[in-house]
Amino acid sequence: METLVTRYGIARVEGDELAVVDLPYPNLSALLAAGGTLAEVDQAAVTRRLPKADLDEVAVAPLSLRTTSVWGVGLNYHGKAALTGRPVPTSPILFLKPNTALSGHRDTLAIPAGLTEQFDYEAEVGIVIGRALADVSPAEVLGSVAGIVAANDTTARDVMKATGAPVLAKGFPGCAPLGATVLPWDEIPDPNAIPVASWVDGEQRQSSTTADLIFDVADLVSRLSRYARLEPGDVVLTGTPPGTGQDRNEFLRPGQQVTIAVGGLTPLVNSIS
Amino acid sequence: METLVTRYGIARVEGDELAVVDLPYPNLSALLAAGGTLAEVDQAAVTRRLPKADLDEVAVAPLSLRTTSVWGVGLNYHGKAALTGRPVPTSPILFLKPNTALSGHRDTLAIPAGLTEQFDYEAEVGIVIGRALADVSPAEVLGSVAGIVAANDTTARDVMKATGAPVLAKGFPGCAPLGATVLPWDEIPDPNAIPVASWVDGEQRQSSTTADLIFDVADLVSRLSRYARLEPGDVVLTGTPPGTGQDRNEFLRPGQQVTIAVGGLTPLVNSIS
Repeated sequence: METLVTRYGIARVEGDELAVVDLPYPNLSALLAAGGTLAEVDQAAVTRRLPKADLDEVAVAPLSLRTTSVWGVGLNYHGKAALTGRPVPTSPILFLKPNTALSGHRDTLAIPAGLTEQFDYEAEVGIVIGRALADVSPAEVLGSVAGIVAANDTTARDVMKATGAPVLAKGFPGCAPLGATVLPWDEIPDPNAIPVASWVDGEQRQSSTTADLIFDVADLVSRLSRYARLEPGDVVLTGTPPGTGQDRNEFLRPGQQVTIAVGGLTPLVNSIS
Repeated sequence: METLVTRYGIARVEGDELAVVDLPYPNLSALLAAGGTLAEVDQAAVTRRLPKADLDEVAVAPLSLRTTSVWGVGLNYHGKAALTGRPVPTSPILFLKPNTALSGHRDTLAIPAGLTEQFDYEAEVGIVIGRALADVSPAEVLGSVAGIVAANDTTARDVMKATGAPVLAKGFPGCAPLGATVLPWDEIPDPNAIPVASWVDGEQRQSSTTADLIFDVADLVSRLSRYARLEPGDVVLTGTPPGTGQDRNEFLRPGQQVTIAVGGLTPLVNSIS
């Protein structure tokens, strides 16, 4: 079931209710770091029930915003490569985001004043790492993923062009929101067919699935693990499909609202300011 | 005075002794995050005295290895730019290291097996941030730096060439050691004349000072703060002077020992395996 963290503790989504459970961890990062799994959330005793309609009010960050390393990858959808005319990469273009960029569902994303005229959304499937991984094979990756999370890998296109540094163009304070809930990996029907979509003010902009990935989840995480160790609770973003503002030459403006839907997860919604 | 963290608590170096003081923080990151300053360490009551000769046995990481963001900069010494023939950058080439790369004084640095034939040292002055900084001026930076720390920004040159990604070439597990001690910023005689040097097996390889920086400390941190928020205890590495293995076409081998000396700090020593 979808797992989240509320101000009352770790919870699971049961139909139209949030079932808060009896687990002694402040967030899913702590659960995973202690060697736990998301299956424990499904099995734990319920201590409180809340209406799912209250999610926006009671949900807090599912992962530790202070310790979670969020990695990303440039140009990882065939459809995006085709649209841009850039060659299909032969190895993933990997980058790391600063922790200070992390934020959550319903947080407001502030366009960095005076720095960009091209602030853009990127709907992405985020892979939540379940246990420490260093130099592991794709098969080992698949046994070590905890779940998926919705993500908006916002990017200042003009900053990217000027600096060539994803960490600068994608790392503005609070501009990398992760969704409120995590879907356990073993509840995903097909890891190569996870839907990912975005809307701006209700108008659909992106719609694809992980079937179009250049480097699939297992390959991507395996390749990253050759260079850096991943820790429980870390997140690997898998790239964004076509339909971003860059592809339409139309960028985000204050007052707009961006919605990201990934798999069966509760959509990630953020206002722009 | 030089400040460090021992297994008995925060301490200061007093002549040939380590004076453990009565402060309730596990490390300097926690002290700074709580709004404290390194001056508090100088003023705190002493609870225990140890011989400075025991430093290697009692010192632990001065900063939190789990939460500290370590930023770096490519090509920031005029001497290095002249040697390589590359143009002097007009804006700093900034990158972020993964937390899992962090390690400490006397930790062994493992050359990543099968991935590099060009594992190299880089002696650097690390700037320890004292309070949160976002989009601040150079003058504001100077009032917000806590101190300096010695660092070895090890780099797999062939990985850098192959990937173009500093975060991959400089982020191998445990390969980014920081020194055991921090020198308070206000005890540095001249921020534009901080010595930095390295030795491999006792043979000197690098020797310069921050007088040769292309972007000086205040300018570098100010520019970085336009893109990303820095938190108390974060570290900004300031680049390395000429004399690396790259400059000599001679790379590190298992069994060697690298020593980095920065300012008046206790040298950072690591063995290679």
